[in-house]
Amino acid sequence: MSKIKILNEKDIKKIINLKLAIEAVEDAYKQKSNKKGNVWPLVFYEYEHDVFDLDIRSGNLVDSNCYGLKLISYNENNPKIGLPKVNATALVCDGKTGKLIAILNAEPITSYRTGAAAAIGAKYLANKNSRNLLVIGSGNVAKYSTAAILITMPSIKKVYIYNSRRVIDNDELLLFKGEVKELLKESGMDINAEFESVSDIQEITKKSDIIISATPSDKALIDVSWVKTGTHFSCMGAGLSGKQEIDEKIFSKARIFADDEAQCLKVGEAQSAYKEKIITRFDGEIGDVLLEKIEGRKSNEDITIFDSTGLFLQDLATAVKLINEAKEKNVGSEIEL
Amino acid sequence: MSKIKILNEKDIKKIINLKLAIEAVEDAYKQKSNKKGNVWPLVFYEYEHDVFDLDIRSGNLVDSNCYGLKLISYNENNPKIGLPKVNATALVCDGKTGKLIAILNAEPITSYRTGAAAAIGAKYLANKNSRNLLVIGSGNVAKYSTAAILITMPSIKKVYIYNSRRVIDNDELLLFKGEVKELLKESGMDINAEFESVSDIQEITKKSDIIISATPSDKALIDVSWVKTGTHFSCMGAGLSGKQEIDEKIFSKARIFADDEAQCLKVGEAQSAYKEKIITRFDGEIGDVLLEKIEGRKSNEDITIFDSTGLFLQDLATAVKLINEAKEKNVGSEIEL
Repeated sequence: MSKIKILNEKDIKKIINLKLAIEAVEDAYKQKSNKKGNVWPLVFYEYEHDVFDLDIRSGNLVDSNCYGLKLISYNENNPKIGLPKVNATALVCDGKTGKLIAILNAEPITSYRTGAAAAIGAKYLANKNSRNLLVIGSGNVAKYSTAAILITMPSIKKVYIYNSRRVIDNDELLLFKGEVKELLKESGMDINAEFESVSDIQEITKKSDIIISATPSDKALIDVSWVKTGTHFSCMGAGLSGKQEIDEKIFSKARIFADDEAQCLKVGEAQSAYKEKIITRFDGEIGDVLLEKIEGRKSNEDITIFDSTGLFLQDLATAVKLINEAKEKNVGSEIEL
Repeated sequence: MSKIKILNEKDIKKIINLKLAIEAVEDAYKQKSNKKGNVWPLVFYEYEHDVFDLDIRSGNLVDSNCYGLKLISYNENNPKIGLPKVNATALVCDGKTGKLIAILNAEPITSYRTGAAAAIGAKYLANKNSRNLLVIGSGNVAKYSTAAILITMPSIKKVYIYNSRRVIDNDELLLFKGEVKELLKESGMDINAEFESVSDIQEITKKSDIIISATPSDKALIDVSWVKTGTHFSCMGAGLSGKQEIDEKIFSKARIFADDEAQCLKVGEAQSAYKEKIITRFDGEIGDVLLEKIEGRKSNEDITIFDSTGLFLQDLATAVKLINEAKEKNVGSEIEL
């Protein structure tokens, strides 16, 4: 029997913020680059395609002295009976003894660490003076990514929101902006950019310095001919076989970086470019760029792509920061197990 | 946020018993035989060989409407700093929605479900009038297996305990018997057999009706020439590459049953017999025998072997029974996650 820290959804919402997640995810990418972060094989089981499935992701971070797992279940039908679609639980163990340290509701962690990834891509690969941000998608990933990028890229003055299925009306735009404002507030910041709903993606792409794609699309929404020099892409919507958001030909013109090269070639935004032999590999992984082992952007004119498929190490690093923060601020509870 | 049942070590000890575990494991074997129990890929990571490792086992039981996982960490050095060697945690989810239902300390579950397996092997494969039981090994698996077999095989009058490394003295024998008595008491039963420590395994093998092997041995302790007709073996000590407890030639003379055929041929007691082409496959899986899809023992003279490598489905079925029992008896606590 030993004491285990419990951080439920309410506890986590008291202490999580995007700055914390950005720091955590940078740390995870760096440890991965230094071979101190290992991702273990994914367990995936599908009850009904696109309706009910689950996966178990696991791995360790040696420098953070921990390992753990995240069990995520997705059930499309749950809202009908008043349950959330996503059920996610994380276990974190001590990396020296194997003792279970904490059990966390991993659902909020997933949102924050995904937004953080988009922002880290921009921070290390986009032009420093980027002013115009185009966000493709208006869901959860879009919202967290937008807020996080406004933290790492304070030069941004304009945020364009685009949804391929419908024009975002003013009410929805205000709601989106309000939620982004809340996310920034958690990190002690405010919005310094204008938000605008757009319907002509071709026109906006031509003047965008940074583009976040955050949709479940399975065909390209952005044509290679629309992209201006210097644009940075953070591609967040992939992570499954068959998904695509931007023209695969953009890959041949860009400096391209993965969160995990093997995973991105298989299920990332790069999968089409790889299958069609437009690329054979990435210029590097994002962790190598963070540690300056390789150069990210080489000139203001480079197009850059960060292909983010999502790694359990991002969750684990965020969980560890939350556990420490919770101890300091006396948040959460303890159980004996 | 939703309520999750917590069953810690103390809670589980209040309600677990071998009868419950035997019922649960029989149910797991049957569901597996009916393709209603799926074992998902094992995740295994080794920090230091034979010193510190962990694995994540997972799967579902469709008829029990659940799925889950067990994270087990093993660290040989933990006792030096006052921690247990084994740290095991189970998560159980609802099989229709994916909602997390319960978190359990899985360490006691592992002991009970392993003992139950040994006893189920004997119950369905040994001769009904078996009187003499030989237990090879005197550790935890031996203790739980002995108690469980005394439940399923009330005909047993004599229990011989053998340890290949040392002779079990009277104090240790009494301790072992006392612990078996406690385990039987939990199921409302008492010991009706004599216990004896033995040093000449050849002599005892010749008169044993049932033999449990429950050691971490990597070489055969029982020679094929010592085995009398009619003997049943429940081989519990394998489950890792390189492990062996009985002469592989016994397999050629026996009717042989696996908990999971593929797993047993790879890491079970059968691995040597399979590698040396003494066998190419099993006569069947134990679940098929329980459901009378195939015949177990065909005559009193048959030698039978149950090769038990251990399945997560045994843990899951036991966990589900414990969750129901805990609700009925108001044991355990609840958290919001």
